[in-house]
Amino acid sequence: MNIKPLGSRVVIKALEKEERTKSGILLPDTAKEKPQQGKVMAVGTGRVLENGTKVALDVKEGDTVIFSKYSGTEIKIDGEEYMILDGDRDVLAIVSQG
Amino acid sequence: MNIKPLGSRVVIKALEKEERTKSGILLPDTAKEKPQQGKVMAVGTGRVLENGTKVALDVKEGDTVIFSKYSGTEIKIDGEEYMILDGDRDVLAIVSQG
Amino acid sequence: MNIKPLGSRVVIKALEKEERTKSGILLPDTAKEKPQQGKVMAVGTGRVLENGTKVALDVKEGDTVIFSKYSGTEIKIDGEEYMILDGDRDVLAIVSQG
Amino acid sequence: MNIKPLGSRVVIKALEKEERTKSGILLPDTAKEKPQQGKVMAVGTGRVLENGTKVALDVKEGDTVIFSKYSGTEIKIDGEEYMILDGDRDVLAIVSQG
Amino acid sequence: MNIKPLGSRVVIKALEKEERTKSGILLPDTAKEKPQQGKVMAVGTGRVLENGTKVALDVKEGDTVIFSKYSGTEIKIDGEEYMILDGDRDVLAIVSQG
Amino acid sequence: MNIKPLGSRVVIKALEKEERTKSGILLPDTAKEKPQQGKVMAVGTGRVLENGTKVALDVKEGDTVIFSKYSGTEIKIDGEEYMILDGDRDVLAIVSQG
Amino acid sequence: MNIKPLGSRVVIKALEKEERTKSGILLPDTAKEKPQQGKVMAVGTGRVLENGTKVALDVKEGDTVIFSKYSGTEIKIDGEEYMILDGDRDVLAIVSQG
Repeated sequence: MNIKPLGSRVVIKALEKEERTKSGILLPDTAKEKPQQGKVMAVGTGRVLENGTKVALDVKEGDTVIFSKYSGTEIKIDGEEYMILDGDRDVLAIVSQG
Repeated sequence: MNIKPLGSRVVIKALEKEERTKSGILLPDTAKEKPQQGKVMAVGTGRVLENGTKVALDVKEGDTVIFSKYSGTEIKIDGEEYMILDGDRDVLAIVSQG
Repeated sequence: MNIKPLGSRVVIKALEKEERTKSGILLPDTAKEKPQQGKVMAVGTGRVLENGTKVALDVKEGDTVIFSKYSGTEIKIDGEEYMILDGDRDVLAIVSQG
Repeated sequence: MNIKPLGSRVVIKALEKEERTKSGILLPDTAKEKPQQGKVMAVGTGRVLENGTKVALDVKEGDTVIFSKYSGTEIKIDGEEYMILDGDRDVLAIVSQG
Repeated sequence: MNIKPLGSRVVIKALEKEERTKSGILLPDTAKEKPQQGKVMAVGTGRVLENGTKVALDVKEGDTVIFSKYSGTEIKIDGEEYMILDGDRDVLAIVSQG
Repeated sequence: MNIKPLGSRVVIKALEKEERTKSGILLPDTAKEKPQQGKVMAVGTGRVLENGTKVALDVKEGDTVIFSKYSGTEIKIDGEEYMILDGDRDVLAIVSQG
Repeated sequence: MNIKPLGSRVVIKALEKEERTKSGILLPDTAKEKPQQGKVMAVGTGRVLENGTKVALDVKEGDTVIFSKYSGTEIKIDGEEYMILDGDRDVLAIVSQG
């Protein structure tokens, strides 16, 4: 992937409905926060605290996650849709595919 | 459970009415903050303070808690409903089942 | 009491009108902040400062207090009504019963 | 007085018009912030800074002050009206009675 | 003057139009922030930073200043009008009378 | 370029549609955050943290970036349009041209 | 100039259209943030951080700058118009006249 997200941002590929149901997790379309499953494609180096240190993100490339679409930015790369999100604020949980 | 909440987030299974009344605690449906009883299924590693240290959550897996539904996210896993909440902000108290 | 409030939260039992007047303090129903007298039933361990230390609450179990009902959560335990409040923000003063 | 205000809160007895004019200070009823003169009856121990230390209030019991009524709470003790205010935010100045 | 402003507050006497024009500075009545010239009559000891130290105000008694009337409080002492303002937020500049 | 942006600000030249598509990244015109591709022309020295140290920007002159137009300021230099943006808040990712 | 701006404030003389165009920079009148070119006439000593240290402004007397008129205060000195602005928030960039 030729995009490097900055700070606490991550690039996520939303999973299609058929891929999502494999994990047994269902995210209702009607929920007000619009949670969604996706795969982490790239992560930033993390946000900078007021004391000057960086906080590494809790997610890494390849993780399957539940995220909130609330304030993300949609982009298209080579015809495929991705989202740029804030990894600290918008990514809620990691799904372990078992 | 195959979901690992991030930061200060927790996954909670809301208790059904019959389960709730066992503890003798009743949460009115009419309250504006919509408190509810539930069981903690999984907890994150805690939020990061501005000095870089993490604050572990006050609740642990298995706790019965009173939580506010105000800003949680509803998800379904294998047909069962759960909520992802902020453990610091949305979980009000632990109920000790005596 | 089988409820343990978290962080800076406290559980308070509002006093009935006849109990309140004993202290000689009257809280007008018409006030916009709706102050009320109550008894502290349980207290949390206090809020966490940005430097990681906890600030113990200024009130303790058994204190009679004046509180603001502004953002509390009403609950019922064994048929009796209680409120979960933020002890730092919502409890205004301790009444010494003389 | 049997009320002990918490944190940075203070209890104030508003002065009647005839008492106020003695100091030569007049506070217009039409001002949008509604300033008023009063006597400090009791003070809290002060607010807690993020580094954990307490900041003592600038006013003490017995001080005559100008305060803003903006967000105070009215209470009645033994038939007399008082206000609970934030001493840092709502008390503007001390009047030295000369 | 028998008023001692608290914290970062200052007491200011607004200058009349004829006094203002001496400095060659004109503040339009139509400006949305309503700047005005005045004389500093009394200053507080300054605001307290989160590390516990006080920041002395940049203005002192006797300074002629340009201030914004945005959130000040009007008072009258012995028939003369004054304003209580926040010296850090509402006082914009010192005018050197040359 | 004869403009030196201050603090965390950056000057960016938005890429024309034909230049943008070379990277294979497409940013929909309909997105609510209006992401756009551009080239970094100049960068500030970075924002100042509360502890007094500066945080250098994550982007440098010559980088191709995806930015959000949300709060930028449009300027024209020698007939060409540029934007002044906050590099920390408005620049989302660096595009590596491969 | 007989005005000394306080804190992070600066006094700026807006440039007339003919003076602005010399630098080759054009600021559209229709932009929502209303950027404008001007000359810095006087600067404050800088804002105070929460650790008590002052941050000197990035601009100095004589600099030609691009600023946002968003929240400035207009004043007139000896018949000429100036603006008092926040140097950290409202001044976007320095223009080097080449």
